[in-house]
Amino acid sequence: MKFAVLARDGAARRGELTTAHGTIQTPVFMPVGTLASVKSLTTEQLRALGPEIMLCNTYHLMLRPGVDLLEQLGGLHRFMNWDGSILTDSGGFQLFSLAAIRKIKEEGVEFRSHIDGSPFFLSPERSIEIQSRMGVDIAMAFDECPAYGIAHGEVAKSMAMTHRWAQRSLDARNAFVAEKGKGPALFGIVQGGIHLDLRKQSVEAIGAMDFDGVAIGGVSVGEPKHEMFEVVNYTAPLLPEEKPRYLMGVGTPEDLVNGVAAGIDMFDCVMPTRNARNGTLFTSFGKVSIKNAKFAADPRPLDPQCSCLTCRTVSRAYLRHLFVNGEIAASVYNTIHNVWHYLDLMRSIRQSIASKSFGSFRDSFLSRKSSGDADAG
Amino acid sequence: MKFAVLARDGAARRGELTTAHGTIQTPVFMPVGTLASVKSLTTEQLRALGPEIMLCNTYHLMLRPGVDLLEQLGGLHRFMNWDGSILTDSGGFQLFSLAAIRKIKEEGVEFRSHIDGSPFFLSPERSIEIQSRMGVDIAMAFDECPAYGIAHGEVAKSMAMTHRWAQRSLDARNAFVAEKGKGPALFGIVQGGIHLDLRKQSVEAIGAMDFDGVAIGGVSVGEPKHEMFEVVNYTAPLLPEEKPRYLMGVGTPEDLVNGVAAGIDMFDCVMPTRNARNGTLFTSFGKVSIKNAKFAADPRPLDPQCSCLTCRTVSRAYLRHLFVNGEIAASVYNTIHNVWHYLDLMRSIRQSIASKSFGSFRDSFLSRKSSGDADAG
Repeated sequence: MKFAVLARDGAARRGELTTAHGTIQTPVFMPVGTLASVKSLTTEQLRALGPEIMLCNTYHLMLRPGVDLLEQLGGLHRFMNWDGSILTDSGGFQLFSLAAIRKIKEEGVEFRSHIDGSPFFLSPERSIEIQSRMGVDIAMAFDECPAYGIAHGEVAKSMAMTHRWAQRSLDARNAFVAEKGKGPALFGIVQGGIHLDLRKQSVEAIGAMDFDGVAIGGVSVGEPKHEMFEVVNYTAPLLPEEKPRYLMGVGTPEDLVNGVAAGIDMFDCVMPTRNARNGTLFTSFGKVSIKNAKFAADPRPLDPQCSCLTCRTVSRAYLRHLFVNGEIAASVYNTIHNVWHYLDLMRSIRQSIASKSFGSFRDSFLSRKSSGDADAG
Repeated sequence: MKFAVLARDGAARRGELTTAHGTIQTPVFMPVGTLASVKSLTTEQLRALGPEIMLCNTYHLMLRPGVDLLEQLGGLHRFMNWDGSILTDSGGFQLFSLAAIRKIKEEGVEFRSHIDGSPFFLSPERSIEIQSRMGVDIAMAFDECPAYGIAHGEVAKSMAMTHRWAQRSLDARNAFVAEKGKGPALFGIVQGGIHLDLRKQSVEAIGAMDFDGVAIGGVSVGEPKHEMFEVVNYTAPLLPEEKPRYLMGVGTPEDLVNGVAAGIDMFDCVMPTRNARNGTLFTSFGKVSIKNAKFAADPRPLDPQCSCLTCRTVSRAYLRHLFVNGEIAASVYNTIHNVWHYLDLMRSIRQSIASKSFGSFRDSFLSRKSSGDADAG
């Protein structure tokens, strides 16, 4: 994996990340395809939206269809017929959200499947093995993600284990490469909760290891937005300059703009896809609930400033009709729009950094957003 | 509307039907887009499958979003961004299936919405008005569809009313054209249940009216398959030679082949789309239930003989994975395949008629079907 910063504007970085499956322009948003499917889209439709990288979830894929089957079928790329890059998380975050049915030890995490209760085990070694055997481009170190609101001492202990797990993850990846002759790039994950002293320690520990990139984890776990950005704004500048920086599980369009301003290069979030299925659409004039009766007879495109397939071909009235009647195509049209909206935002961000106008882009974007959806009629 | 028979092979006809929205090669299968959406597909995806005509349901559209709104938005074509031809049914068949909440009189049918119980009224005049105002290419006369198993005398009475309604439908269409300067082509519907003497009378009555095409209605309503084909094989040859012949609501791939053999030019059915959502897929080696565990590790395309997007890009294992995990993309991939399968069958049928080999095509098709899905492994 290669990474180069091509341009800077303030702390914002315009870069290129190259994997075995191509070159990714950064800052980048990675659509989430939990179970090897960006929900509602065929791989063909995803490709038409132009993402260069997507994210899949190790926890979900290890349960269904399982790594043995994925490996036997030629890996995750072939399974879903996706020739772009893939990043997988390590499973750590999902285990954090399964609090009731997991047991965390130094060795790893025993847990039960949320589907049928059957027992599983994940550890740094096992997570890296699974990610490597799925053939992904970028794997994530196995980490523990502490809940929001727990005491400093507990977060510190958790972080220390995450650091030991990080080294074990790195060792496991290197062992896989030594044995197979190839393997994924590997990113470390900085933890530390909302405690800036711990974040600093975590950056020092993770930054000193030989990772290909570094992520800020343990954010967007229930803390207020201003606390999240306190962490991000403090942590991002401390991260190694020459490695890509990934802010995990974030976020709204505003979060992406603010994250880039802090020097983040990579993002992922289920927000555009999940909101699409719920009928909440992101537009140039704010969020819109397409089921609103005011759209029933509205012949205009959802977002007149958008050039996605949905906005080019159908009206607000049609989108509302499909949604309120439970048509599957509602999810499809809405997902196409929301994913495009996110990807298009990242294109605009990249252009503005390259042309040294990111600051004014950000100001204009954030003030436009706060004007709400008055234009939606 | 123009119709020309280009070639014949036995009773099978190869023709061309021209509407304001283009030329349709017949025999043709019309995918069903009940609520102005072929379920699971964007209009773009439907277009990529190549149908020249689709069917929408007047009953469903008059309830949601309603004809006033559809007219105000520029008609059904613009609403769904579909530039091919559209045929609508008259609502008669849906009212037949709502037995508990409708009252049939000579004037028309009072009924309650299956959604919220609110009262509606349909009559020949109202049905034609709605279809015409939606801007469709081919409208259907308003008919009564008698249930299977009722007595000859009752079917005869129902049929006589359908004939009076047919004339009123024709008058209503002609009045619409006289007033607006344009309007849909209009097909009459032959009824008569399973009683061949009534079918003959109905053909004589409907055939004598100035319709642009004639449909066989009241089939596939619960009667055994051999009784349905007794009706079709008896009725089709009696229909006007120069007009297109439409067998409503039929059917399986075998039914299409047998219908063409009887001289039918047009078909519609929800079978490919509904089955797709249930995971039942039509292939060159018979029907397949994609959730079957035997497909879990099967890297082959669903149907190696199929060239649809689904079969070109993903495996049986992936399709099964999507389906058993409830991914929306399962419905999308499955619908693409099933609709393509039907349209491709019609292409093969048309070619075989043009090359005077329909008889052997039919023999080979029907014997292949009966061999079941042994090849699916």
